[in-house]
Amino acid sequence: MTSADIAAADTSRVFHSWSAQGSLAPLAIAGGEGSTVWDHDGKRYLDFSSQLVFTNLGHQHPKVVAGIVEQVQQLATIAPAHANEARAKAAELILDRAPEGFDKVFLTNGGADANENAIRMARLVTGRDKVISRYRSYHGNTGAAIVATGDWRRVPNEFARGHVHVFGPYLYRSEFWATTPEEESARALHHLERVIQAEGPQSVAAILLETIPGTAGVLMPPPGYLAGVREIADRYGVILILDEVMAGFARTGEWFALDAFDVRPDLITFAKGVNSGYVPVGGVIISEPISAAFDERVFPGGLTYSGHPLAAASIVANLTAMAEEGVVEHARQIGTDVLGPGLEALADKHDVIGEVRGTGVFWAVELVADRGSREPLAAADMGRLKGDLTQAGLLPFIADNRLHVVPPAVVTADEVAQGLEIIDGALSRL
Amino acid sequence: MTSADIAAADTSRVFHSWSAQGSLAPLAIAGGEGSTVWDHDGKRYLDFSSQLVFTNLGHQHPKVVAGIVEQVQQLATIAPAHANEARAKAAELILDRAPEGFDKVFLTNGGADANENAIRMARLVTGRDKVISRYRSYHGNTGAAIVATGDWRRVPNEFARGHVHVFGPYLYRSEFWATTPEEESARALHHLERVIQAEGPQSVAAILLETIPGTAGVLMPPPGYLAGVREIADRYGVILILDEVMAGFARTGEWFALDAFDVRPDLITFAKGVNSGYVPVGGVIISEPISAAFDERVFPGGLTYSGHPLAAASIVANLTAMAEEGVVEHARQIGTDVLGPGLEALADKHDVIGEVRGTGVFWAVELVADRGSREPLAAADMGRLKGDLTQAGLLPFIADNRLHVVPPAVVTADEVAQGLEIIDGALSRL
Ligand SMILES: Cc1ncc(COP(=O)(O)O)c(C=O)c1O
Ligand SMILES: Cc1ncc(COP(=O)(O)O)c(C=O)c1O
Repeated sequence: MTSADIAAADTSRVFHSWSAQGSLAPLAIAGGEGSTVWDHDGKRYLDFSSQLVFTNLGHQHPKVVAGIVEQVQQLATIAPAHANEARAKAAELILDRAPEGFDKVFLTNGGADANENAIRMARLVTGRDKVISRYRSYHGNTGAAIVATGDWRRVPNEFARGHVHVFGPYLYRSEFWATTPEEESARALHHLERVIQAEGPQSVAAILLETIPGTAGVLMPPPGYLAGVREIADRYGVILILDEVMAGFARTGEWFALDAFDVRPDLITFAKGVNSGYVPVGGVIISEPISAAFDERVFPGGLTYSGHPLAAASIVANLTAMAEEGVVEHARQIGTDVLGPGLEALADKHDVIGEVRGTGVFWAVELVADRGSREPLAAADMGRLKGDLTQAGLLPFIADNRLHVVPPAVVTADEVAQGLEIIDGALSRL
Repeated sequence: MTSADIAAADTSRVFHSWSAQGSLAPLAIAGGEGSTVWDHDGKRYLDFSSQLVFTNLGHQHPKVVAGIVEQVQQLATIAPAHANEARAKAAELILDRAPEGFDKVFLTNGGADANENAIRMARLVTGRDKVISRYRSYHGNTGAAIVATGDWRRVPNEFARGHVHVFGPYLYRSEFWATTPEEESARALHHLERVIQAEGPQSVAAILLETIPGTAGVLMPPPGYLAGVREIADRYGVILILDEVMAGFARTGEWFALDAFDVRPDLITFAKGVNSGYVPVGGVIISEPISAAFDERVFPGGLTYSGHPLAAASIVANLTAMAEEGVVEHARQIGTDVLGPGLEALADKHDVIGEVRGTGVFWAVELVADRGSREPLAAADMGRLKGDLTQAGLLPFIADNRLHVVPPAVVTADEVAQGLEIIDGALSRL
């Protein structure tokens, strides 16, 4: 079968996420290795998307494949109520990498239900209702997670109550008339605190933030912002949930994005990089006071596949391989030495680049029609860019007027050079 | 490591669903085959729970294990936006088994997000808000699904709006003062219609029902009920969603539980039996008018692991093996010839059994303190029964005052006889 045959078979019967079903033209991916995938016609692509920013260890890593094969041959599945060796080990490896003071892991099927359960814990522990999150954010597609989300995807889905949104720091498009990172940080904190005061602190259960908002544009927190959020949360008895679904597990050149900041949350949500997406999984890392609150009290949440052995085995293999191969350090070094400077060099050359932001293998290149006005590049141009990059052999991750440069954390300096060359060419043709 | 070691390692770090974390004493399952599992000390158990009623094809079916191994070695993961051969095939096999008029499948990670997305489709297509579901029901743990749920698990989690609950038919504990199945059916329909009228039909997007409510007690729909619901839905322009998460894929001795009834829904949700839970997956089967409504219009829902290749490959292998091995017919025949009559014989012998209900490998045995008053057996007795059955080598599924007898659909007549003997002994000791 050709790629076109498979794409036709897929789209004739499979209903696709976030799409109008009548205009799908997907690539049919046949296989992959490391930072490369190929289609059924043998055409190869550098995967600078990590799919949806989740194949942190790259495609078809032999140790993760072997871990899954071993587990499926021993015991594919078991109910959450029973105990499982791989699950205990997965929780141990996750907790080893988490900050001090976290002692339990609740496993889910993905990022959305991780956030759902973190929100549930915060509400039950505080006895309060409201969840404050950012307008520029994505937290998943289920009931509460999609209403916590800040972007357009929330608007047709507002069927949960108790959600309030604030603006976060984003100096390039400041909502606070700020001119320096320090000013942006201080003003964003002031705004957050004023919203909490105006909502009534007794009604606020949680602040839910992506440590570094990802799909919203790799919005690096300015100095003091996250530490300030922690202070505000403490001042009002609010639970701080950091969503590390996209930013965690080597993406930023740290085990957790929060490791680079002076902040300790109460709950951490994760998915994606924890197992590079080889099996659907996500979860919540729980600090001791919150897990202890459910020692005697029944936690009223659960799901059929919580702690699935196959998912657990893939976490164990993925985190072990990341440690053995120094993938976190590699991602950091690639970001500092190769990818960051390379993107800055493109910005020097191409006026269409308004700003480059990021760390590790987590970068956004903001494209503008005009550097002075910072007007976002038109959607049609972004569409052309996407087609052009794909044609040239690079799978891009495009969101609004941004090209996100998010290869696997195992990407080599050579592959980065190839990818940047393709991007350079496409920007020149734009 | 012994079972006790693994249970201790698990519970010291893993936060468990629906539990007080301080009083967990899980079994550590080491492996399984067909209808049997064993712990790390070598003790064997007949699995009459199918875990959480999902291992329909039994444990470690070699064809499903092989399907997963093959896929993981070729391509473990890919983003939903790309096309994938296993995913196209999985959708084809699901649609082949679905009623006429269904043309697309949306894949999710489990049952809750299947219901979330079905509810989303119904709301968007009708432009209406409210979802009507039953008090005795379970639809999952995320935002909307848990509020659609009828049982106690909803109450601490009511953060979604637009949900209304009705009583459904359950003659043994009728809410309608009915004395015959026909009367129960007619009155339950009258009640449903009156609630729709009183809520305002223009505000009702969907009726969401388990075809046969499962965890709520295998509540077999009385004659005419489901056909009557379809008529009411049509009368008021309401979308009918049937939740087949637990009842689908051989559990009732049919591909879908609805096949035994004169009803055609607009959307069908599924999970569990579709791949016997070997990889987390669920989904929505979409009828043509609803899928067509999103041909030009963007569907505002999605998830990172929608259409995951490993999940898709497990569906393909599971559904193929079920067909090749006549598992659906087997489940029907075991229910009619062995399990149903065997449970009725136990009811003749033990006064503690108030009612036996079910079909295929989907049965509930309702235990009562008194046959006249039908007072449910006390929780403490149910706890003792659970311990006793487990001790005697049978994994039970217990909900409220009921023992659900839900072995894999591949259970043999011999295994059923062994299981019934264990249950007989435990009931005698009670
Ligand atoms: C930061 C963040 N949180 C949550 C999610 C939702 O994860 P999932 O799609 O696995 O539900 C995503 C997905 O992109 C994400 O980027
Ligand atoms: C009928 C029904 N619907 C939905 C669900 C939720 O499925 P999951 O736990 O995979 O989210 C269940 C789970 O038991 C169920 O029985």
